Amino acid sequence: MYQRLPGSGGRLTGVAVEDQLKAYAERVDVRLEALLPPVTERPEILHEAIRYSCLAPGKRLRPAMCMAAAEAAGGEAAMALDAGCAIEMVHAFSLIHDDLPAIDDDDLRRGRPTCHVKFTEGIAILAGDALFSLAFSTMATSSSEAARSLRAVQVLARSSIRLVEGETADILSEGTPVDIATLEFIHANKTGALIAASCEIGAILAGTDPGHVGCLRDYGAQVGLAFQIADDLLNETSTPERLGKAAGSDRERGKATYPALFGIEGSRKAALDAAERGLGCLEGLPGDTSFLRDLAIYTVERLH
Amino acid sequence: MYQRLPGSGGRLTGVAVEDQLKAYAERVDVRLEALLPPVTERPEILHEAIRYSCLAPGKRLRPAMCMAAAEAAGGEAAMALDAGCAIEMVHAFSLIHDDLPAIDDDDLRRGRPTCHVKFTEGIAILAGDALFSLAFSTMATSSSEAARSLRAVQVLARSSIRLVEGETADILSEGTPVDIATLEFIHANKTGALIAASCEIGAILAGTDPGHVGCLRDYGAQVGLAFQIADDLLNETSTPERLGKAAGSDRERGKATYPALFGIEGSRKAALDAAERGLGCLEGLPGDTSFLRDLAIYTVERLH
Repeated sequence: MYQRLPGSGGRLTGVAVEDQLKAYAERVDVRLEALLPPVTERPEILHEAIRYSCLAPGKRLRPAMCMAAAEAAGGEAAMALDAGCAIEMVHAFSLIHDDLPAIDDDDLRRGRPTCHVKFTEGIAILAGDALFSLAFSTMATSSSEAARSLRAVQVLARSSIRLVEGETADILSEGTPVDIATLEFIHANKTGALIAASCEIGAILAGTDPGHVGCLRDYGAQVGLAFQIADDLLNETSTPERLGKAAGSDRERGKATYPALFGIEGSRKAALDAAERGLGCLEGLPGDTSFLRDLAIYTVERLH
Repeated sequence: MYQRLPGSGGRLTGVAVEDQLKAYAERVDVRLEALLPPVTERPEILHEAIRYSCLAPGKRLRPAMCMAAAEAAGGEAAMALDAGCAIEMVHAFSLIHDDLPAIDDDDLRRGRPTCHVKFTEGIAILAGDALFSLAFSTMATSSSEAARSLRAVQVLARSSIRLVEGETADILSEGTPVDIATLEFIHANKTGALIAASCEIGAILAGTDPGHVGCLRDYGAQVGLAFQIADDLLNETSTPERLGKAAGSDRERGKATYPALFGIEGSRKAALDAAERGLGCLEGLPGDTSFLRDLAIYTVERLH
């Protein structure tokens, strides 16, 4: 199916994208380590919990997209490194709170005890809150140009509201039949908003014009949707070994998913369409779009 | 004892300050009502919970201090109205999370069910998170001058981190003997930081010079401390009727308080000293400092 994608240049193995992702992630991890307060800072346990959650192994997809968007907009990755770290802090905050007993009640994340299991529920709530504050403190000094930092803060704040709205809609929908509009609301807000913001902020910090900022935001929204549908599909069709958890676990929890509403084939098509629309948004950008292009293709290639 | 305070102009009845506070609060309530998303916004219950908590009756002390600081710095209250609302959102967010079962476990706040009792724990966590995002979104557009808005965001973010650090130290200290350094850490961060930030941000938004900004921040820190000691004292010495809750409840919960470490008289003196230092910070400011002056005196007058 990937052949329908324009500019894909033949089937990729995915290795090149993963290598590039790793290279971005290494820069992010070094910078995150420096931006987070040391564990010697009072109260020590709070800062331990913050570092445990935010420095946990991860793909650092959002910071990578933020830096790649700066490059696609004609700037340099370094212009968006701190912003990428701020976005990763928001992502880590949202995972800590989502895992809480009163929300998704997850004990494990990527094979490690979740923050509240390791540090108590009270500390997990507060570590999430502190990470959220740190994210805004970091974003507010992300650029040497005040106007760019301020716009980045505005975009981060608005996407964070949408992230919380999406998560709320998600927990409200559990165990009840969900219509297409609700599913789309959940996906667009819970995961789409922060991914779109990552790309938009990278473009803003590169100092590109508003038209290109809009294109990169739209690219992020489409690829974020493709990612989410792909995750839904893999949760349904993959093996427990590849997934690291039981296949079909979303369905069993009564979670709203694409396969439940559109079926396997319909969902594959929806993911592919979103990735194609994302690729279309990259046309005419002034910088190097190769990573973002490869990433869009990689997203849906996982489904083969 | 108030006669020791310079410039107090004789004993105040407190009525004038309360009237002025009410006038500021009315402006804040009208603006907050407009800034918060309507309950018709999806998901409705999230926005209901946000409005329930943030529009609950309150003194709006922090926004009043923010606007009064703008005036003391030679600007107008209107310059700091949106910023004051953003600070009130952070305050409301922190109360929602502090009341949660995993933190202070309070069922009632000012005689009404707390957010999690009324809306479930999950919704309360998310409503707090959404309010926190809304605060930064509001602060990021608080001034027509980008550089001022950005500095206001930076100050808000840093004081929010300190607020969370203070709350964490507070819950960690419950039921264990607390030394003076820890008590001072808790008070300076849990309540002092946001009150100091309120005054600092008002001054920044008025466009005054860095020296005056520093004076107003210091004023806020001192008066915030005086407030906190006064609250500790009133919790210990007042009647349940005046307090709206059992007297001595802090002591029974093993909370770190001034009276526990310094005694009643030592605490009174500490509050008075802090208020005096606060008054001293107002010397030489270019604008109208009368409300801030009266407020500092009012804070400790409650103790007679």
